[in-house]
Amino acid sequence: MNDLEFNATPGAALARRFTGVRARTEALVALLSPEDQVIQSMPDASPAKWHRAHTTWFFETFVLRRFDPGYQVFDPGYAFLFNSYYEAAGPRHARPKRGLLTRPGTAEVSAYRIHVDAAMARLLAAPPEPAVALIELGLQHEEQHQELLRTDMLHALAENPLRPAWDPDWQEPSHAAGPITYIAGPEGVVEIGHAGPGFAFDNETPRHRAWLAPYRIADRLITNGAWLSFIEDGGYRKPTLWMSDGWAACAAGDWKAPLYWEQRDGAWWQFTPGGVRPLEPARPVRHVSWYEADAFARWAGKRLPIEAEFEAAARLPGFHDATGIVWQWTGSAYRPYPGFQPWEGAIGEYNGKFMVGQMVLRGGSLATPPGHARPSYRNFFPPDKRWQFSGVRLAEDA
Amino acid sequence: MNDLEFNATPGAALARRFTGVRARTEALVALLSPEDQVIQSMPDASPAKWHRAHTTWFFETFVLRRFDPGYQVFDPGYAFLFNSYYEAAGPRHARPKRGLLTRPGTAEVSAYRIHVDAAMARLLAAPPEPAVALIELGLQHEEQHQELLRTDMLHALAENPLRPAWDPDWQEPSHAAGPITYIAGPEGVVEIGHAGPGFAFDNETPRHRAWLAPYRIADRLITNGAWLSFIEDGGYRKPTLWMSDGWAACAAGDWKAPLYWEQRDGAWWQFTPGGVRPLEPARPVRHVSWYEADAFARWAGKRLPIEAEFEAAARLPGFHDATGIVWQWTGSAYRPYPGFQPWEGAIGEYNGKFMVGQMVLRGGSLATPPGHARPSYRNFFPPDKRWQFSGVRLAEDA
Amino acid sequence: MNDLEFNATPGAALARRFTGVRARTEALVALLSPEDQVIQSMPDASPAKWHRAHTTWFFETFVLRRFDPGYQVFDPGYAFLFNSYYEAAGPRHARPKRGLLTRPGTAEVSAYRIHVDAAMARLLAAPPEPAVALIELGLQHEEQHQELLRTDMLHALAENPLRPAWDPDWQEPSHAAGPITYIAGPEGVVEIGHAGPGFAFDNETPRHRAWLAPYRIADRLITNGAWLSFIEDGGYRKPTLWMSDGWAACAAGDWKAPLYWEQRDGAWWQFTPGGVRPLEPARPVRHVSWYEADAFARWAGKRLPIEAEFEAAARLPGFHDATGIVWQWTGSAYRPYPGFQPWEGAIGEYNGKFMVGQMVLRGGSLATPPGHARPSYRNFFPPDKRWQFSGVRLAEDA
Amino acid sequence: MNDLEFNATPGAALARRFTGVRARTEALVALLSPEDQVIQSMPDASPAKWHRAHTTWFFETFVLRRFDPGYQVFDPGYAFLFNSYYEAAGPRHARPKRGLLTRPGTAEVSAYRIHVDAAMARLLAAPPEPAVALIELGLQHEEQHQELLRTDMLHALAENPLRPAWDPDWQEPSHAAGPITYIAGPEGVVEIGHAGPGFAFDNETPRHRAWLAPYRIADRLITNGAWLSFIEDGGYRKPTLWMSDGWAACAAGDWKAPLYWEQRDGAWWQFTPGGVRPLEPARPVRHVSWYEADAFARWAGKRLPIEAEFEAAARLPGFHDATGIVWQWTGSAYRPYPGFQPWEGAIGEYNGKFMVGQMVLRGGSLATPPGHARPSYRNFFPPDKRWQFSGVRLAEDA
Repeated sequence: MNDLEFNATPGAALARRFTGVRARTEALVALLSPEDQVIQSMPDASPAKWHRAHTTWFFETFVLRRFDPGYQVFDPGYAFLFNSYYEAAGPRHARPKRGLLTRPGTAEVSAYRIHVDAAMARLLAAPPEPAVALIELGLQHEEQHQELLRTDMLHALAENPLRPAWDPDWQEPSHAAGPITYIAGPEGVVEIGHAGPGFAFDNETPRHRAWLAPYRIADRLITNGAWLSFIEDGGYRKPTLWMSDGWAACAAGDWKAPLYWEQRDGAWWQFTPGGVRPLEPARPVRHVSWYEADAFARWAGKRLPIEAEFEAAARLPGFHDATGIVWQWTGSAYRPYPGFQPWEGAIGEYNGKFMVGQMVLRGGSLATPPGHARPSYRNFFPPDKRWQFSGVRLAEDA
Repeated sequence: MNDLEFNATPGAALARRFTGVRARTEALVALLSPEDQVIQSMPDASPAKWHRAHTTWFFETFVLRRFDPGYQVFDPGYAFLFNSYYEAAGPRHARPKRGLLTRPGTAEVSAYRIHVDAAMARLLAAPPEPAVALIELGLQHEEQHQELLRTDMLHALAENPLRPAWDPDWQEPSHAAGPITYIAGPEGVVEIGHAGPGFAFDNETPRHRAWLAPYRIADRLITNGAWLSFIEDGGYRKPTLWMSDGWAACAAGDWKAPLYWEQRDGAWWQFTPGGVRPLEPARPVRHVSWYEADAFARWAGKRLPIEAEFEAAARLPGFHDATGIVWQWTGSAYRPYPGFQPWEGAIGEYNGKFMVGQMVLRGGSLATPPGHARPSYRNFFPPDKRWQFSGVRLAEDA
Repeated sequence: MNDLEFNATPGAALARRFTGVRARTEALVALLSPEDQVIQSMPDASPAKWHRAHTTWFFETFVLRRFDPGYQVFDPGYAFLFNSYYEAAGPRHARPKRGLLTRPGTAEVSAYRIHVDAAMARLLAAPPEPAVALIELGLQHEEQHQELLRTDMLHALAENPLRPAWDPDWQEPSHAAGPITYIAGPEGVVEIGHAGPGFAFDNETPRHRAWLAPYRIADRLITNGAWLSFIEDGGYRKPTLWMSDGWAACAAGDWKAPLYWEQRDGAWWQFTPGGVRPLEPARPVRHVSWYEADAFARWAGKRLPIEAEFEAAARLPGFHDATGIVWQWTGSAYRPYPGFQPWEGAIGEYNGKFMVGQMVLRGGSLATPPGHARPSYRNFFPPDKRWQFSGVRLAEDA
Repeated sequence: MNDLEFNATPGAALARRFTGVRARTEALVALLSPEDQVIQSMPDASPAKWHRAHTTWFFETFVLRRFDPGYQVFDPGYAFLFNSYYEAAGPRHARPKRGLLTRPGTAEVSAYRIHVDAAMARLLAAPPEPAVALIELGLQHEEQHQELLRTDMLHALAENPLRPAWDPDWQEPSHAAGPITYIAGPEGVVEIGHAGPGFAFDNETPRHRAWLAPYRIADRLITNGAWLSFIEDGGYRKPTLWMSDGWAACAAGDWKAPLYWEQRDGAWWQFTPGGVRPLEPARPVRHVSWYEADAFARWAGKRLPIEAEFEAAARLPGFHDATGIVWQWTGSAYRPYPGFQPWEGAIGEYNGKFMVGQMVLRGGSLATPPGHARPSYRNFFPPDKRWQFSGVRLAEDA
């Protein structure tokens, strides 16, 4: 097991960063009602209120209880409610039942956040050295939950037949428009993974060598328009385009288009954070599963890039929209890097125990907090999931 | 099909009754937060907010839209959201997804109620004659949902590991204490069912003759203490006491005691509307399924009364606690009376289409609004359900 | 609990009857291969081989082991495999796994039958008095399993896309053709249930009084042709014709016609014991569930008879096809008669523990062994089951 | 897409090989009854009879119908019954229903095999050049089904409470006994995958370069005795040893030991092809899932080798039991090699569409036909499957 070690943000800057990240979470729920914050629309998702409390529990459990001898736990019952999956941190509430917790209510969760923030402010005035890395981890963790809060709440609102808009003023992010060019990526022995002073998750390490055969990678993302061609060409009806499991998922879910697409009177619409809007063909497609991305690639006569290809090519000139719009499915199953060691202790469960049955996504989405992602960042979801802002960039053998 | 006909409450009194029933619903949610009101803890239950809106929709759909030409529908989208099961009233939101509706929020539901109440007040100043019976039906309907709101919300709060008390000041209802005496009921040809001027549901009619063999019926209810004896004698572990389906339900649900009972450090506790309290052996048992009631009766060497026995005997002197504490499981499957005709039109779906797979309960519970139940009243639930205030009165062949 | 008591067949006649019933079982499997006999096409059904062994186990367990001190158990492992549901007779193999028993094979099951038959022949030379009633019960039991063997095997063959004919020479039973007349049944106080010297199951007792309101009952069965009218009139698409649970079953099962009906190129065909044959409109409909029978009756403006009506009317002149073609669904839920006592001991589980969640059928079918059924006979199945030879006779209030 | 191309066995030798492989399948069922051959004990498994027919259908469909103009299809209905998963070869019978096909019976399947073998013998006298590779593929395919027939039938017999022995004379294969030594494997750029003249599946190609960091790999397999230590140390009760999904599978399946282990009176027994036998601690463990193998490796402070490590090291001196006892789970998810192209046409579905959600196993088992496996051979199963002869070889970073 390896330690959580990196050159963390120094003292005062860390306090400022802490304040900023915590405030950003609260800003995300500004337009949500108490009712909005309590429900869980599927087992994969969590209530907004729970995200707010769980990220707070993380600081309470892994920082304050360890490094602030005078800290008063806000409510001893919360440890059971707001632990997500840390076996080493004790028993916890069943994940699919998170939406049954009407109490503590949103107001009490706000009070919990204020209580912990105040204690953190005291600690951040002179943070003990071993706490610094854990605080940064807590902030990275909260940024991840900010993205999940957005994807989960979008899913919950989409379940409402009234299709309420979260933010009617919401705007689509800008993207690189125009036809795709395939650019040659680095080949032979390449170095992959994180190294250096900044923060990275354990799953991005160790930096290591890999061998890449010659390949080309698309300079931009697949669009809604291209996806419409796939649909119109029967993409969702031809089993030979699909993985066997993918075809079963397509049939079981009655998939006929990406998630949140609706056809009304012949026209396509899309449910977005701004409500239901006309589908824009020029924009990058999102809310597709790995199974769909893989089938699309086969239909297009291409393939998904493996994650090492993506990471090696992401810094090339002309490589557009690596981040900021959608996470990009890769052809790589999520497994440990050679020499991988999870962090020590309970936080070692952060990434390592999910390294089977999931596919890697690279890049970053419109819901990812600014500055959160890196080229070495490894996101991962099961191949049938569609509620993330997930899209497609293609590749081909050279 | 028969008409909805009875001597309804006359004008001004009806308006007063309307105001009273509607206010009682709101009083029931006085201690609930917006978060409490939105969730659905199981498919059998509905959110508190939904009960408030659905009862309002009933008046809007079956009264105002028919009898008030100037009525402005509050929100056209609500018809889809708040229709429960009336096929003839159009499509509706899937029942198990009622807990995914964060919007309209509790405040909008309050506004909906005020809007409909105002229109109803105008109508009730001089109600059209054919509307009167429907208004009374709407009030009876709302009283039924008041009971469901209580049972459903209790279930939701029970799902919370913090076991929050709905009303810390809640008191148990008084009951007839002491040992059971078996009293002889009327036998031979008896008349059963509703007749006369007051309100009754269609399933209580027509009044008809039935033949009763000699029997005796308990003068009071089975207590928690008697149930503890059943538990201690292995009642939940002896398959020969149970119906075959009941034994399967007992195993699948891992039943070891009535719902809401918890054993901690050897002592028994019960989750109540007042929170978790020590189990009181002298009080009537509640939250048992028909399967458990039937097994208990077999263990006791008795049987459940059939519904005609209960109805015939309920007015006898010495027959205690017919109502006000628990609904009482009978040995009768819920089927139509000879000559039964459902009401005409959409409200004919009110009772008739549920007449298979359920068992009849008689009496009335602590959650039943005062004055709502009658000796001819037929309540019904599937034999595995336990979240109602359901208890046991025994009988025996004479 | 009551004893198993009746005037049983005397000595030599009982031995002849034993031989005849046992031989009839073997005759039923004459056209079946070993492969046919091993599979279980759904949890409700059992393999043919299992029926043959289980009926044998019944004699071994309840007769030979009790009354023949020198009896050598054929194989001690069989008690676990071939007990159906007798809790008092010890643990047993899980019902849905009966189709996983390739061994003992059909040849060993034949040897088991021969072994038990030989022992029974010795016992039947001078049967101990208390054994006689149990032997008769075992024969009645075997006759019931003969019918199940036929319905279960038909279901299994129907699962085969090749639709193999069990017996290409099989002929439809003759029936009363022509239009329906409704005949008035006995009303007022009637006596229902079995009494007298012959065999009856415990659930047919005690004979007791019931009150019948005036009614008329159809003199013959509903035909395939009438059912086609129901289909063509949208019977399977109108929820208001159906019980709520029935409509859900109809949707879940994608029911569009009775079981075993197939439409090919516009014509209707039916899978029968003789293979796939053109549907004959004049013949009685079969393989309909209670839900379908109930919806059909509502569509026809009639209702199903309750079981007391059927029993009281079945002996009237002009009441055709009471038995021999289909079991006839009644409007009665399967519950105990007033004063019902199950038999003593393990055989008390025979009928009593199934008295919830099922509907009564009366009459007898083409698959019922000749002489097996009686007017007081109570058959019962859950309301969604369709693989029995179950049909419809209507009634109406007078 | 690439062609199926390799230096196949020449004419007469191919005919001999055909006869040998086909005869070996029949030899495998010599001890099985018709009843044994019909059942399907779980959706993952297929009936023995089905394996015999499906392998025959493969030759009929992909060889005889293409290359023998005079070939008479044995039964046109078989194409639907015995196609496994080839979408391009038309519709087919649902996989979980293979055990419901009592007909065609074993005798007809034997006749089908003889019919096809006779036609193949004529073709093999002078096989058309493009048929040769397909014939070899059909033989490789049949060898794979020989192994599945063995694992599936073992599972089916294990479901029988009588635990019948398939072959009482069956003997365990010999293995390298003694303590494990870790040997250094080739590192840096290595070449992986099949190249050269012999047969290989498309998923073993193309041969390509990979980079291996320094590692050591165990010279022999993990034993039952080591697994007992894992059990006794609480391996099945410590969630921190397991992948998150693995821990869920362990709980759902109530895993406490490898499949087919039973504890009776304190001693461990194992169900084998020879029946229930005492567990031998010195022998290699088998019937463990990937989840268990992964947890065991973590408990042992080691890891599973990735597939390139296994392939590179498998030819080293001292690397024992690469094949012949168990398939060995690797740490690699089953994905295509760089530059992978499935075969053209329907046989392109052979491997490619399963390349997600499964883990790679290397080596070969006691059930693998002699000569079938290669060092480049990629076997694959989902991580929760245990009914294959799957075991564990560990590795570690150097």
